[in-house]
Amino acid sequence: MSEPLFRRIALIGLGLIGSSLARVVKREGLAGHIAGHARTQRTRDKSLELGFLDSAHETPGEAVAGADLVVLCSPLGTYAEIGAAIREHLAPGAIVSDVGSVKQAVIRDLGPQIPEGVHLVPGHPVAGTEHSGPEAGFAELFQGRWCILTPPPGTDEAALARLAELWRRAGSQVEIMEPGHHDRVLAITSHLPHLIAYTIVSTATDLADATQSEVIKFSAGGFRDFTRIAASDPVMWRDVFLNNREAVLEMLGRFNEDLTALQRAIRWGEGDKLQDLFTRTRAIRRGIIDAKQA
Amino acid sequence: MSEPLFRRIALIGLGLIGSSLARVVKREGLAGHIAGHARTQRTRDKSLELGFLDSAHETPGEAVAGADLVVLCSPLGTYAEIGAAIREHLAPGAIVSDVGSVKQAVIRDLGPQIPEGVHLVPGHPVAGTEHSGPEAGFAELFQGRWCILTPPPGTDEAALARLAELWRRAGSQVEIMEPGHHDRVLAITSHLPHLIAYTIVSTATDLADATQSEVIKFSAGGFRDFTRIAASDPVMWRDVFLNNREAVLEMLGRFNEDLTALQRAIRWGEGDKLQDLFTRTRAIRRGIIDAKQA
Repeated sequence: MSEPLFRRIALIGLGLIGSSLARVVKREGLAGHIAGHARTQRTRDKSLELGFLDSAHETPGEAVAGADLVVLCSPLGTYAEIGAAIREHLAPGAIVSDVGSVKQAVIRDLGPQIPEGVHLVPGHPVAGTEHSGPEAGFAELFQGRWCILTPPPGTDEAALARLAELWRRAGSQVEIMEPGHHDRVLAITSHLPHLIAYTIVSTATDLADATQSEVIKFSAGGFRDFTRIAASDPVMWRDVFLNNREAVLEMLGRFNEDLTALQRAIRWGEGDKLQDLFTRTRAIRRGIIDAKQA
Repeated sequence: MSEPLFRRIALIGLGLIGSSLARVVKREGLAGHIAGHARTQRTRDKSLELGFLDSAHETPGEAVAGADLVVLCSPLGTYAEIGAAIREHLAPGAIVSDVGSVKQAVIRDLGPQIPEGVHLVPGHPVAGTEHSGPEAGFAELFQGRWCILTPPPGTDEAALARLAELWRRAGSQVEIMEPGHHDRVLAITSHLPHLIAYTIVSTATDLADATQSEVIKFSAGGFRDFTRIAASDPVMWRDVFLNNREAVLEMLGRFNEDLTALQRAIRWGEGDKLQDLFTRTRAIRRGIIDAKQA
């Protein structure tokens, strides 16, 4: 095996994404040592037991000591606190990255905590499942998916290249993007779909005239796909919406306009309008299949 | 092999559902003869070539002659015309059923066309994929899914039992339901999810600041599941919305209220509200997994 890409990787947060990253880093031999921190003793013990960590640490500060790559894999709302906890412990020349679904907020919350000589390179692997926790991770999660890196202006090129190489060796394709653009693109491709899925499942839960058991029984008509998305981690998603408010509200506004137009077409029995709209949406599906993201 | 359940089954419409039903009827030996009608010569030829039909007919009337079971498997908007075309040709004692996603409209459109001594028993197998056409069908489509039958008051019990037996032998569980109740339950578990999926895919298509290629690339964040649903047959879905208007508009109203509440919580940064709502939607997912409908 060749020299590992990083001497020591520290993962802060050991849920679905953190534990998947640890697993693929271990499988591919991308780090000499994988250190991890999780808030609970249970998660730390479980992670050691599952074997994807070399060491588990009670505090983020201990975990990052001596690491040349630190990756935050916890909900966005924890970043400011973690930044404060690790800043004194970061090694000179280290790269600090993350896997959060919003990127401007990372630069806002974490940027001021990063010492001179340490490189902040925010990242977002566009991959996931509806399952949470260290048991839910698997080394193949990132295979064939995109990982978006959003370096702030002036980011060290070598640091960026090294992090990009890590994600490529984890199986992903890497895209570099401006953080604000990332947040708008993901607002439509990820955040709004989750918001809508959570809403419709909640609407169904509250119905009095269709019982819960009927909703469950007949979910194969389309509803079940929404329930899968709406089973995603609540704290992670709360933080996504709190931290990408403007872009989500903007996309939600557009969605609402389009939905109102459809509602009107249904009320007035405008079949041609409905059929036209239902026809044009097929093209995007074909694009996704062609791009092997289906 | 035991005696077939029906002497001759006539399928009007040979797309995903019709061709799947033909395939399972053939595999299980449920009919002595499977006759089919499709509007286009291409579909009729293809169906014979694929081998799931015993005979293909140019008109619905020819197809139903001598059949003891007729199943309409075409979009809801075609029912009135088909009813008029077959009424003179229906054999005494025959059962006329369908597979449409709305049931009150079937009784409204088809009921008046059914001669004395012929039994109308509307049905709805809650199963499907986003693919269309005779090539898209497969015999396992109904396996483990629910089929809902909505007999109007006074329906012949023997006819109902025979049709239920067909669906059970096709692999489904059968539920008997009042037609109006069916339309409300399906409005939330199937029609509204499709409407929303079509809308969000359309909203994404119109975005100027995220390119089409970006939307496709990063669809793994949730969006791709919606594109699958939004790739369903446009004519079939147009007819669903035109024929279940009241129930769909009612569910859409509830959904809009809930979405507006979430929108407000995001705007005002009400994290607790978001987290509570995202937590309660997990229970339904567990129910669906337990019911083996996931």
